Amino acid sequence: MTCSIEDVKFDSQGLVPAIAQDAENGQILMMAWMNKLSLERTLLEGRAVYWSRSRQEFWRKGDSSGHIQEVLSLSLDCDGDTILMQVKQTGAACHTGARSCFFRELSA
Amino acid sequence: MTCSIEDVKFDSQGLVPAIAQDAENGQILMMAWMNKLSLERTLLEGRAVYWSRSRQEFWRKGDSSGHIQEVLSLSLDCDGDTILMQVKQTGAACHTGARSCFFRELSA
Repeated sequence: MTCSIEDVKFDSQGLVPAIAQDAENGQILMMAWMNKLSLERTLLEGRAVYWSRSRQEFWRKGDSSGHIQEVLSLSLDCDGDTILMQVKQTGAACHTGARSCFFRELSA
Repeated sequence: MTCSIEDVKFDSQGLVPAIAQDAENGQILMMAWMNKLSLERTLLEGRAVYWSRSRQEFWRKGDSSGHIQEVLSLSLDCDGDTILMQVKQTGAACHTGARSCFFRELSA
């Protein structure tokens, strides 16, 4: 089953969460946000382009760090409000230098 | 590195996105939202308890469908605003009957 950007339901701020999964080993690398334009750029360029909520600007992953994310495929969830990307990650996904942003165990 | 619920940054609506990943094969099953109380219940019960934004009520995954999510571990991302759970999924995670909610390919 396929779908297009028209099927994506952006939230009240015009954003949708996008999860980046390492296509090689299934590791979840990070989650960030996209607006419609950054999703269009991601689809067009085959590279993850997020929208930085803190900086209020496009965030073309790897432009400053070199840690680019080549997007191999994208999928949309059943209700259209979350995106999952299979990516080929160069270097570390996390700004801390960790491969994945999810390096802290959360316990009670 | 470990952390606690005090390190979680809930958004302006008091919510945090929680990604459920199949601990057996790494498949991303779904993403839904938690508030502080549902996260506390998840940590306490070892079962995924979300907050349904549409119904504005707790959503203890599997209570009506039987498709429960046993939570084996949780992690928090670097900036504290997204949770990743390793789960043991009974049956289908998606209300459509699909194993994962991400069954639609998104293309340009």
